[in-house]
Amino acid sequence: MTSSLLAGASDEKTKSHEEPNRPDMCYECVGERQGDATIMQLYSFGESGNAYKCALALELAQVDWEPVFVDFFKGEARSPEFKQINEMGEVPVLIDGDTTLTQSGVILDYISSKTGKLGGRSAAERREILRWLFWDNHKLSTQIGTTRFLMNFLPPEKRPEAVIPFQQGRLKAAYTVLNDHLAGRNWIVGDAVTIADLSCCGYLYYPEPFGFDRADWPHIDRWLDRIAGVPGWQHPYDLLTRAFPA
Amino acid sequence: MTSSLLAGASDEKTKSHEEPNRPDMCYECVGERQGDATIMQLYSFGESGNAYKCALALELAQVDWEPVFVDFFKGEARSPEFKQINEMGEVPVLIDGDTTLTQSGVILDYISSKTGKLGGRSAAERREILRWLFWDNHKLSTQIGTTRFLMNFLPPEKRPEAVIPFQQGRLKAAYTVLNDHLAGRNWIVGDAVTIADLSCCGYLYYPEPFGFDRADWPHIDRWLDRIAGVPGWQHPYDLLTRAFPA
Repeated sequence: MTSSLLAGASDEKTKSHEEPNRPDMCYECVGERQGDATIMQLYSFGESGNAYKCALALELAQVDWEPVFVDFFKGEARSPEFKQINEMGEVPVLIDGDTTLTQSGVILDYISSKTGKLGGRSAAERREILRWLFWDNHKLSTQIGTTRFLMNFLPPEKRPEAVIPFQQGRLKAAYTVLNDHLAGRNWIVGDAVTIADLSCCGYLYYPEPFGFDRADWPHIDRWLDRIAGVPGWQHPYDLLTRAFPA
Repeated sequence: MTSSLLAGASDEKTKSHEEPNRPDMCYECVGERQGDATIMQLYSFGESGNAYKCALALELAQVDWEPVFVDFFKGEARSPEFKQINEMGEVPVLIDGDTTLTQSGVILDYISSKTGKLGGRSAAERREILRWLFWDNHKLSTQIGTTRFLMNFLPPEKRPEAVIPFQQGRLKAAYTVLNDHLAGRNWIVGDAVTIADLSCCGYLYYPEPFGFDRADWPHIDRWLDRIAGVPGWQHPYDLLTRAFPA
C-alpha cells in the first residue's frame, strides 16, 4: 500500500499533468471515511482509461467525489484484499454509500441515472447510448487498453511483439466505425454530450503511443476537441493519480 | 446472397446439429415480411456466440422470432448494404417492428425488459446483471470470439500464431473469475437463470477448440449443464444456421 488517507484538498485545482487535482486514498483506509455518505469514491489510477471515463462523468455531472488510488501495476487489483471489493480484479470501482459498482459501463449508467445528466432523452436514445457503451467495451477500449499496456507499461523484454500489429489492425476497424459515425454529427448520440461520448473517448487523450494518430481520423479529432471544450473537462492525468508520474 | 425467403416451418424441430430448427431468410428479403409485426428477426449465423446469446434468450423467453442468415465469413456484415442496417458491421441485429437493435448486451436487455423474463428482480440485481454483461463483452466473449476465429475459421497460412497463446493467457484469467464466481452458486446473479448467464455462456458450448476445456473449470462445467437443463435450451448449431455446416 503506497498511498494514505489525505483529505480536504479537493478544491485545490492544479493544471499540471504531473499532479492530479485531488488527493488519493489507499483503498484499505476507505472504511475511515464511510461515514461521509455525500462523497462518492472512485477506485482508480491515472493510466486507466476505464477509470478516466467514470472520473470525467463524475466531474461533468458535478458529483462530489474523490479518487482512491489502486496500484494496478504492482498487482494490487488482483490481491485478495481488492478482490473482496471487486472479484473481477479490475478498476474502476465506484462506492456510493452502501452501493458498490464495477465495470465502467455500469458506473456511467449509474452516474447518469442518479444525476439526470449526460443521458439520453428518450428510451430510444438510452438504448442507443447503451449500444455504444457495449461497442466501446467490446471493440474499442478493451483493445486499446491491451495495446497501450503492451507498448508502454510492459518491460520490452516481456513484450509479445507479434500481438501489437494484430491488435492495431483490429483497432483500425474500430476507429473507422467511430470516425464514420461522427461524420456530420457533433456527438455520438443526440445533440449533446452523453456517457456514450465519455466511454468511447476514454483512451483517446493519452499521450503514450498505441498506434492512434488523431490526424488520421478527422471526425474523431474534432469530436475529441469538442468534448475537451465541455465546461469541467480535464485531461486524465489532471484528474487521477498516475502510477507512473511523468 | 445464398439464402432465400422460406417460411412456415418454424414448428418443425430437428435435433441434429447439421440442420437448424428454423428457416433462414436473406436479409435483403426481410422487407417482404415487415408487415408481420409479431415476429422478431435476428440477423445471425450459427458460429456467432454473440448471436447465439440472443437466439437463446428469445427461445427461453418464448418470443416468436426467426433467424435471418448473414454470411459473415464472406464479408456480408461489412458490406454497404448491411452497414445500412448496422454501421458497426456486426451481427447480431434484432428487428422488432420499427425498432432495430444491435450489440448482444442491448438485445438481451431489450428481450428481458419487453418480456419481463430472464431479468433481475430489483434495481441491485439489474445492475449486477449489467455488470456481468459488460464484463462478458470486455473480458470473455470478445477474446473467445477472436481466438476461436483464428484457430478454426481463418486459413492456417493467414494465422498470426503468436496471438493465440497471448489471447488464451488473457482468457485463462477470465475463466478464473467466472469459475470462482460460480463456486457455491447456481446462477451468475440471483437464484434463477438470467441474461447474465446467457451472455457469459454464449461461446462455451461450441465444439471447435479455442483453449477452453470444461474439465479444467468445474464450477463453469456444472453451470453450463444447469443452463442446458433449462426447458427450451438448444445448442447453437440447433438454433441457428451455420456458415460452415458439419
